[in-house]
Amino acid sequence: MKTKNTGNIFDLKFIMAKILVINASPRGHRSHSRALTGLFIKTWQTRYPDDSFTNREVGQTPVPHITENWIAAAFKDKATLNPEDEKVLKLSNELVNELKNADLFVIGTPMYNWGIPSGLKAYIDQIMRINETWKFRSGEPDGDYVGLLENKKLYILSSRGDSGYNKGETNEYMNFQTTYLKTVFNIMGVSDVEIISLDNEEYGGERFAKSQREINQRILQIR
Amino acid sequence: MKTKNTGNIFDLKFIMAKILVINASPRGHRSHSRALTGLFIKTWQTRYPDDSFTNREVGQTPVPHITENWIAAAFKDKATLNPEDEKVLKLSNELVNELKNADLFVIGTPMYNWGIPSGLKAYIDQIMRINETWKFRSGEPDGDYVGLLENKKLYILSSRGDSGYNKGETNEYMNFQTTYLKTVFNIMGVSDVEIISLDNEEYGGERFAKSQREINQRILQIR
Repeated sequence: MKTKNTGNIFDLKFIMAKILVINASPRGHRSHSRALTGLFIKTWQTRYPDDSFTNREVGQTPVPHITENWIAAAFKDKATLNPEDEKVLKLSNELVNELKNADLFVIGTPMYNWGIPSGLKAYIDQIMRINETWKFRSGEPDGDYVGLLENKKLYILSSRGDSGYNKGETNEYMNFQTTYLKTVFNIMGVSDVEIISLDNEEYGGERFAKSQREINQRILQIR
Repeated sequence: MKTKNTGNIFDLKFIMAKILVINASPRGHRSHSRALTGLFIKTWQTRYPDDSFTNREVGQTPVPHITENWIAAAFKDKATLNPEDEKVLKLSNELVNELKNADLFVIGTPMYNWGIPSGLKAYIDQIMRINETWKFRSGEPDGDYVGLLENKKLYILSSRGDSGYNKGETNEYMNFQTTYLKTVFNIMGVSDVEIISLDNEEYGGERFAKSQREINQRILQIR
């Protein structure tokens, strides 16, 4: 990973980065977003061979939806958690720790019905944890959210049937996918978000092939 | 249900309406959105005792996420479906038929992390079916969607921790919940959408109690 301008060339955190790759497509080899994360990993490994990768699958093997007990436990004071609460939050704690331990997140996701797939929403609901990944500024509900994931960067590698979903474009108002992910990761403190989207899948043919060439080129140039 | 101005007083479809109630909260008796749908049903039954109700639970017993095989089957021509495809689409067909058979939809849903709960997204992914609930105008991908659910009305009964999510308000840009639902139901042909949202849950106390009184009053006045 490129070194951040920390003024300290011995800042190993940024020299040997930990990268968390989250794949959200329910599809396997036919998934376009999965092909993008695959190309990203390959490109990155060639460029930064010392960086390490963790994979989190939420598409083909989704994480559970949050439940009534999960919500009750997540909003308790940590000191008052009983063994049942600990059990219900176990996976969520693992997912949150994965985020805390990584320097860079790469989410590969399709747009399904103008939003993210339900499996990725289940994951988002598991990681948006009060006093873990975000908090209220005053400590009490105040509508002012402070992110607790610091010094992270997020790449969103997206695949969409149509196009025109970017800022200022015709279908921007129907983008409940990358706009949503950017919003919730911003709330968790991740302000450095780069979106790379492979569009036009549903049209196929040369129109889609052109999008593929452009997006693959863009991923190959990541640094 | 009130009769639509069809010019035909014998139009029984609108005199004895079928109402589909979709509850999306993972919570039971502690759910605020579930309390709203409960009050809606009670109010409606008093006013229109001949109308009938169907309940669809997607919160406490969620429908499955769509899968690679589901997607492949849903995009096939109906004539080419094999028994395996039919099997994988069985529940989706049931959900779509429920929508087609109803005159009025009532969705009760919380806002989770500025979006809909993952269980409700799983439901949306199951019901957004090409050539069943929507189609491309030209029959081929053209970015021009035609809804196939006709003469329906949707009430969204929402519960949210904060407020200011309505059109023109401060947090409108963070509303990936009712704005999303309205968008996808519009695409399916449901243009008559009424949103009633119980806000400020996270503040509790008098602020929330005031919201509750106002919203309950609004539901009691539905006709």
